[in-house]
Amino acid sequence: MEPSEKINIGLLGYGTVGSNVYSLLEEQAAEIKKATGASISINKILVRDPSLPRAGAPPELFTGNFEDILNDAAISIVVELIGGTEPAFDFVTAALEHGKAVVTANKQLLSRQGFYLFRLAQDKKTQISFEASVAGAIPVIKVLRESMVAAGLKSIYGIVNGTTNFILTEMSRTGARYHDALARAQEWGYAEADPSEDINGKDAAAKMAILASIAFHTNVGLDDVACTGIENVSRLDIAYARDLGLAVKLLGVARLYQDRINVRVYPALLKQDHPLASVSGAYNAVFLKGAAIDEIMLSGPGAGGMETASAVVSDIVSVVARRESPGFLEYPVAYRGLEFFPDEEVVSTFYLRLEVEDEPGVLAAIASAFGKHGVSIQSVIQKGRGARAELVMVFHPVKEARFAAAIEEAGRLEVIKSTPRPIRVEGNHGGGE
Amino acid sequence: MEPSEKINIGLLGYGTVGSNVYSLLEEQAAEIKKATGASISINKILVRDPSLPRAGAPPELFTGNFEDILNDAAISIVVELIGGTEPAFDFVTAALEHGKAVVTANKQLLSRQGFYLFRLAQDKKTQISFEASVAGAIPVIKVLRESMVAAGLKSIYGIVNGTTNFILTEMSRTGARYHDALARAQEWGYAEADPSEDINGKDAAAKMAILASIAFHTNVGLDDVACTGIENVSRLDIAYARDLGLAVKLLGVARLYQDRINVRVYPALLKQDHPLASVSGAYNAVFLKGAAIDEIMLSGPGAGGMETASAVVSDIVSVVARRESPGFLEYPVAYRGLEFFPDEEVVSTFYLRLEVEDEPGVLAAIASAFGKHGVSIQSVIQKGRGARAELVMVFHPVKEARFAAAIEEAGRLEVIKSTPRPIRVEGNHGGGE
Repeated sequence: MEPSEKINIGLLGYGTVGSNVYSLLEEQAAEIKKATGASISINKILVRDPSLPRAGAPPELFTGNFEDILNDAAISIVVELIGGTEPAFDFVTAALEHGKAVVTANKQLLSRQGFYLFRLAQDKKTQISFEASVAGAIPVIKVLRESMVAAGLKSIYGIVNGTTNFILTEMSRTGARYHDALARAQEWGYAEADPSEDINGKDAAAKMAILASIAFHTNVGLDDVACTGIENVSRLDIAYARDLGLAVKLLGVARLYQDRINVRVYPALLKQDHPLASVSGAYNAVFLKGAAIDEIMLSGPGAGGMETASAVVSDIVSVVARRESPGFLEYPVAYRGLEFFPDEEVVSTFYLRLEVEDEPGVLAAIASAFGKHGVSIQSVIQKGRGARAELVMVFHPVKEARFAAAIEEAGRLEVIKSTPRPIRVEGNHGGGE
Repeated sequence: MEPSEKINIGLLGYGTVGSNVYSLLEEQAAEIKKATGASISINKILVRDPSLPRAGAPPELFTGNFEDILNDAAISIVVELIGGTEPAFDFVTAALEHGKAVVTANKQLLSRQGFYLFRLAQDKKTQISFEASVAGAIPVIKVLRESMVAAGLKSIYGIVNGTTNFILTEMSRTGARYHDALARAQEWGYAEADPSEDINGKDAAAKMAILASIAFHTNVGLDDVACTGIENVSRLDIAYARDLGLAVKLLGVARLYQDRINVRVYPALLKQDHPLASVSGAYNAVFLKGAAIDEIMLSGPGAGGMETASAVVSDIVSVVARRESPGFLEYPVAYRGLEFFPDEEVVSTFYLRLEVEDEPGVLAAIASAFGKHGVSIQSVIQKGRGARAELVMVFHPVKEARFAAAIEEAGRLEVIKSTPRPIRVEGNHGGGE
C-alpha cells in the first residue's frame, strides 16, 4: 500500500446527503488518511443542472453527464445518492461493469435489484457497500456481514422506519389521532409531504428485504415482503394495548423456519418492558437472535441527512481500506436460495378490538365463531356500555390461516359493527425464533 | 485467493470458551468456507496437562508445550484463551513476533499491554483481534474500529459488567440488600466465587480502557481509569433514586474534553426513561455519541461462555477474510497521544443521601457548608423522622474538586451521622458530550 495513494470519487447527486458527504470527507480527511493510508477526494459530481450555484463543492466539480464520471479512469469509487430505481440502476450497473466500486444509500434499488448487483460486483471483482440504505446511523449491515457468521442467526426484527415510529410514539404519548400525529410529524420534519411509502410499510419492507438477504444469504426482494402499514391503527388500540401492558410498534420481522424464511412488516404489540417498546420518536432499532447469541440490539437515530452521510463516509472508508482484498464481498452472495415459509403457516398471537351490539349472547356468538376454527380466546375485556360496546380480545397462539378463517366467519355476524383489524402480539411466543 | 486454502489455528486454553470455540468452528465450517474461501481448523491445543481426557477435540491435538504451536510454521493464527497477564503476554508476544495473527478474549492483558501489542502486530505486519474481550456478544470493537471514522466520536458510556448489573437489577426489583443480591447472583451463575474484580469496578475499568483506546486512538491503560464499585450502593439509595425517577447503574464513561480524555467507572443515576435504565440483568449496553451521530446504542447479553466463543469465532473469520490486506489494522494505532482530563475538573451532578440528627438548624448547617464551596442544592427531601432522619439531596452541576471539598467540610459536621457517599447523576448535563 503506497502511503500517499490517492483515491478519486465520483458522486451522483448533491442533495442534503450528498453535500454532507462532501463536507464530512473534507473534515475527516486527515483521520481517514491515517486509517486507510489513502487520500480520498471527490473529483466529479453529477447533478441535473451543473450551472446552478451550490454551496460546498467548487463549481468546476459539477457535471451534467454521467459519462464524464464513468469514463474517468482515475475515479475508482462511485457514490450513488440520487435514489429511486431509474436511472440509478443503469448508473450503478455501468459503474460496476467498469470495475468501479459502488457505495449507495438507495434502498429502493437494492430491495429490487440487490441480488443482481451483488453478483455483478463479485463477477467484476469489485465492491458494493450500502450501510446507509438501512437504519441510518446503526451499522447493522456491517454487523450482519462480518460479525454474525458464527452466531447461527435465526431471526431479525425491529423498528426500521423512523416516521411511523414517531407517529406511533406521538399517538401513545398524547392520545392524538393518527391524522393529527401525522400532521405533527410533517410539521417537525419527521415525515415527508408524501409519506405514503413510510405509512403503508413499503419503506420498512424494502429495508427488511435487504437485511434478510444479507443475514440469511438468500434473495429476498421487495415483492417477497408482505406489509401492513399503520393507517388503521386507532388511538383506541393504543390506549387498550396500554391497559394490557403493551405498546404498538411497526415491526419488520424476518425469521427462519428451519430452512425456510418469512419476512413481513406489520404493526405489532410488544410488552412494555421489551427493549423495543422504549425505542421512541424517530429512532430505529434492530434485534438479532441466533443459536449462539441470545439477542443483540442495535439502536440509534433513523436516517437524517447527517446520519446517512456519516454511514456513506464509513462505507467509503471501508471500501478503501479493503481495496486490495475484496474479502467479505463474497459473503452476501454465498447463496443459499432459501424457500419462503408461507404467511398462513406462521403461528401468531393476535389482539382484536371489536365494536359490538351490547346485548345478551354476543360474546357467546363470537366465541363460537372462533371456536369453530379452533381459535381459542385467552382474554376478553368489555369496554364501554350502551348501543356500541367494544370487546378487546387476545387469543392463544394459532396458525394464521385458521385465524383468518375465524375472523371471516366472525365478521359475518350481525352483532359486529366494525371491520375486524387484528394486531399481532410479538416477543413472547415460540414461532421460528 | 486459493479456493481450497487451509488455515491452521493453535488454541491456547481449553476451558468453557475454548471448547465452545472448537465446536462452533466445526459446526460452522461450511459457512465459514463460503465466507472466506478458506477451510479453518484447530490443529494444536495448549493445556496444562495434555494427558487428561477431554470432550470435543481428539486427544492427539493437545500439547503441554507452547513451543509446539509457536514453531509450527503451518499455524498462522494463535487464539489465546488462557486469560490473565502471565504467561498470556509472553505467548501473545512470541506469536506476533513469529508473524502469526492473534485472536484474544483477554481484557486483563489488553488493558495493560494492549498498546504495546497493537504496535507489535503492526510492526510485524500481522493482526491482533479482540472483540471477545469487551461486552460479550456485542460487536462494539468492530463498530468502533470500522464504522465510526466519520462520526467524530465524543463519548462512549455504558454498562460493561454483567455481574454488577445483575446485582443492581435484583436490588431494584426485589428490594434486596447488596449482600443478598450478590449471593443470588452467585447461586444463578452470574457471579464468580470471587467476584471482587466485578464488584470493585476493575473489570469494567479494563474494558473501558480498551474501548477508549480504540475509540480515541490513544493509549488508555487500566491504571488510567479511576473506578468506584458498587459495594457501597445501599438499597436505600436505590429506593430513593426510584422516588426521584432514577435508576442506579454501574457506568463506564469515556469522554473527550476538547483534546483531552477522561475515562472512569462509577455507580451513576440515570433517568428511568434513559435507554440504559432498562438494560437489566446480566446484559451489557454501550452508547456511542459523536458530532455526526446523535447516539447509537449496542446492547446484548454480557460475556457467557457461548457469547464469548461466538465473538472469538467472528474474530477468527475476520482475520482470515482480511489475511491479504491488514487494512484496518493500522487504525487503532493511528496514535493521537491524548492527555488526560483530570477528574477534579469534570463537571458533574451529584446525588447524596445523608443520615442526620433530626433537630432544628441541621439543613441550614449543611447548606452553609456546601454553599461555602459554591455548591448549590437543587432539591432536598427529608425521609423519616426521629433520632435519625435522612436527607436526600441533588445538587446543581459543579466541578468535582469543589464538590469534594464541600463534602469534606460537611462530613465534619457533628449532625451528620454517616459517611457521605455521593452518587453521580448522568445523562442530562452538558459536560464533554
